[in-house]
Amino acid sequence: MDFFRTFAAPVALVALAINPAEADAQATGSTNPQAERALSEDTIAYDFVEGITTEVGPRQAGTEAEARGRVWAERWLTANDFTNVADEPFMMDTWVRGEEEAEIVSPFAQPLAIAALGNSASTGPDGITAEVVYFPTYAALQAAPEGSLAGKIAFISHAMSPTQDGSQYGFAGPARWTGPSLAASKGAVATVIRSVGTDYHRNPHTGGTTFAEGVEPIPAGALSLPDADNLIRMFERANGRAITMKLVLTPRLLGETQSGNVVGEIVGRDPSLPPVLLACHLDSWDLGTGAFDDAAGCGIVAAAAKHVAEAGQPLRTIRVLFAGAEETGLWGSKAYAAAHADEPIAVALESDFGADRIWRFDSNFTESNPDLYRRIAAAVAPFGVAPSAEVATGGADINIARERGTAIIDLQQDGTRYFDLHHTPDDTLDKIDPAQLRQNVAVWTAVTAILANEPRPIKPSE
Amino acid sequence: MDFFRTFAAPVALVALAINPAEADAQATGSTNPQAERALSEDTIAYDFVEGITTEVGPRQAGTEAEARGRVWAERWLTANDFTNVADEPFMMDTWVRGEEEAEIVSPFAQPLAIAALGNSASTGPDGITAEVVYFPTYAALQAAPEGSLAGKIAFISHAMSPTQDGSQYGFAGPARWTGPSLAASKGAVATVIRSVGTDYHRNPHTGGTTFAEGVEPIPAGALSLPDADNLIRMFERANGRAITMKLVLTPRLLGETQSGNVVGEIVGRDPSLPPVLLACHLDSWDLGTGAFDDAAGCGIVAAAAKHVAEAGQPLRTIRVLFAGAEETGLWGSKAYAAAHADEPIAVALESDFGADRIWRFDSNFTESNPDLYRRIAAAVAPFGVAPSAEVATGGADINIARERGTAIIDLQQDGTRYFDLHHTPDDTLDKIDPAQLRQNVAVWTAVTAILANEPRPIKPSE
Repeated sequence: MDFFRTFAAPVALVALAINPAEADAQATGSTNPQAERALSEDTIAYDFVEGITTEVGPRQAGTEAEARGRVWAERWLTANDFTNVADEPFMMDTWVRGEEEAEIVSPFAQPLAIAALGNSASTGPDGITAEVVYFPTYAALQAAPEGSLAGKIAFISHAMSPTQDGSQYGFAGPARWTGPSLAASKGAVATVIRSVGTDYHRNPHTGGTTFAEGVEPIPAGALSLPDADNLIRMFERANGRAITMKLVLTPRLLGETQSGNVVGEIVGRDPSLPPVLLACHLDSWDLGTGAFDDAAGCGIVAAAAKHVAEAGQPLRTIRVLFAGAEETGLWGSKAYAAAHADEPIAVALESDFGADRIWRFDSNFTESNPDLYRRIAAAVAPFGVAPSAEVATGGADINIARERGTAIIDLQQDGTRYFDLHHTPDDTLDKIDPAQLRQNVAVWTAVTAILANEPRPIKPSE
Repeated sequence: MDFFRTFAAPVALVALAINPAEADAQATGSTNPQAERALSEDTIAYDFVEGITTEVGPRQAGTEAEARGRVWAERWLTANDFTNVADEPFMMDTWVRGEEEAEIVSPFAQPLAIAALGNSASTGPDGITAEVVYFPTYAALQAAPEGSLAGKIAFISHAMSPTQDGSQYGFAGPARWTGPSLAASKGAVATVIRSVGTDYHRNPHTGGTTFAEGVEPIPAGALSLPDADNLIRMFERANGRAITMKLVLTPRLLGETQSGNVVGEIVGRDPSLPPVLLACHLDSWDLGTGAFDDAAGCGIVAAAAKHVAEAGQPLRTIRVLFAGAEETGLWGSKAYAAAHADEPIAVALESDFGADRIWRFDSNFTESNPDLYRRIAAAVAPFGVAPSAEVATGGADINIARERGTAIIDLQQDGTRYFDLHHTPDDTLDKIDPAQLRQNVAVWTAVTAILANEPRPIKPSE
């Protein structure tokens, strides 16, 4: 996942419409045998992640690797009895990484681990050598006078704690999302940020940055947390001496290249009813193999759809959307919305927050469909998933649903270790915990089974 | 640490000469106030590690970075009231890393994280592209017929578990130490090994490899564990198709360059008595900042010497030896032995196994000096350090003592997470646990205080 809207958006609280006692009364065990079995036996999601990370690996948006990922996914969906499998192409602007090196030149010469941020400009092969100015927070950078960074490299640090709900992405994320643009607007020749992440390995966290209209892009990279801390210690020890950094980042813009959304369906008994849309994204950043972000999400939604079908053909069609090019600007989500503008959607869900346990369930129809909401809450309670008063807003790949005001459910995953791995080389298969992934699939199965067999329209609350 | 002798050498067991009840009776609390205070208050060792990792960073043997490390260490020793501080130079053959890239070309194209092994040959800038042959163990490679690897890249995997005593380094280490040479002798054009390590991050473990007399060196690199596992899964999924890898490793031999050993002393009241030698190594591999391996060891021995001096001038001189060029062939240890061939040593100890807690105490004079042994055992017992029946053999930096049959003590540190960090980019300051490091310093202080005030010669057992 990359889209910051999820965490940056204000969340309105509504009264919880469920009677907890009622949910508990029903929650003596799962009433869905497929979900129950998935909890102990599902291998579909893990196999999906293992397959695509081993046979394709990184799948950066707009590259031939992403295209191989789509071919792989189409084959997988077809082999797993999905129908109407298709690769829906779209064009996008593509940025790719080049050489990347950072080193302190003086007074404490040593290399630092760095990765360019998506949309970073190039330093050219000879690099940029300049004095570093340290901002402990994004707010400190905001407070810097106009023009004060002329000829300097801005170093934006910040503190970030692991959170179960991932909410600190909204807190620390601006350093990456708009920090380089802000530094450029004040004259900086380059920006390095403390990675937006929570682990202490020498693996920088990449991710997209955006330069505001009228701001010329500058080179921008993320330091690993150990390197960012080291740089801060250098400032403490420099006794006023300038700290000079050499930065070599040579990313390139490839211009327009092709990406695509892969879709597949479990066709329902009544194809005239709007489908249940289950989304994830198939692209990944280039540094890791995109196991947590987001092969797992695609494995989860595909496994849930298959498990629902095991109980017999559902009433509604279940459509899976493996979106392309999420990480670099939600290209796939936008393309899907444009291509399917005239098709109704019953309800949309997205899985894009790793592969760990689901612990909370939000919807945007708690008040308007209390009966359906209660049934879903009761179905997920046996798996340790609590209802909440939050209003579901969905993620980046179901923009189509959010924009239209469609019904949405958010199955909130435990994100405590998500930002240890997010956008790093460490996002690999070995990080998947099979037991947590099975619980995740079980919950998705239970929820999808209810939604796909719901005969009435699902209207969100006003 | 690199020297494999520590774990590869057979260890003779002797009867335990201490009466545990007697040790327990004395172990109601530390009798050494300096050690006791170090346990809760020592900052010397941590500050040493913080200083050198921040102000110097990586200190690869024979490079200008190692030379800056020696200057830094000399200044530190002088500022911390050591006397006879010196940099004792020696010449060595120096190998340095170049570009390094590995990628699977077919059938499952993707990049793999790799680091060249010390003494690896170069592939040249265009790299080598060849079929990979998979050996699950070193023994499997040994069993391969002569000539069977002609034109191939050997991939040597192995299983390795974390161990408190680090003993699995001896079990898994041959894959790195002699695997590439063995593969070359059977015709291989290059070798990639599963890193000799226990973590699952995308940080390969470098380290030296040795080519046997008459075997032409070939390019040799280590894959991170996630990458090695990925490659194994590719073999499982290839259905007999050849797996082709492109490898670019361009290390260079710099020829002879200068390194040096840094020494310093707390001069004793009777300089005619042989000194207590406390050793560590100052060089590090280039990928990390060498915090665990082995800035911590130098911080520990220097802190212990200083704490002993706080109680007043000791009887014997305490000499600290910050050896140079340990990682790439024990050059400093050999140079020290040659330069100090005529000087007696009372007893030698080395710290080169990270910064975690000391849990066991071995000596090679348990039977010959039972009284001294008992006093040391009693002094360390309050810190949770148990005596053992193992015979101390020392480490790489006190070869001089082992070769001469000098008394040796091994203060065994907890190595459970040592091979998560060993020779990786992740060997950085943040991995130091200050509480464990203080315990370590306290134990060294208690032991050094006894040894530096021991009037009698300390003869090892026969």
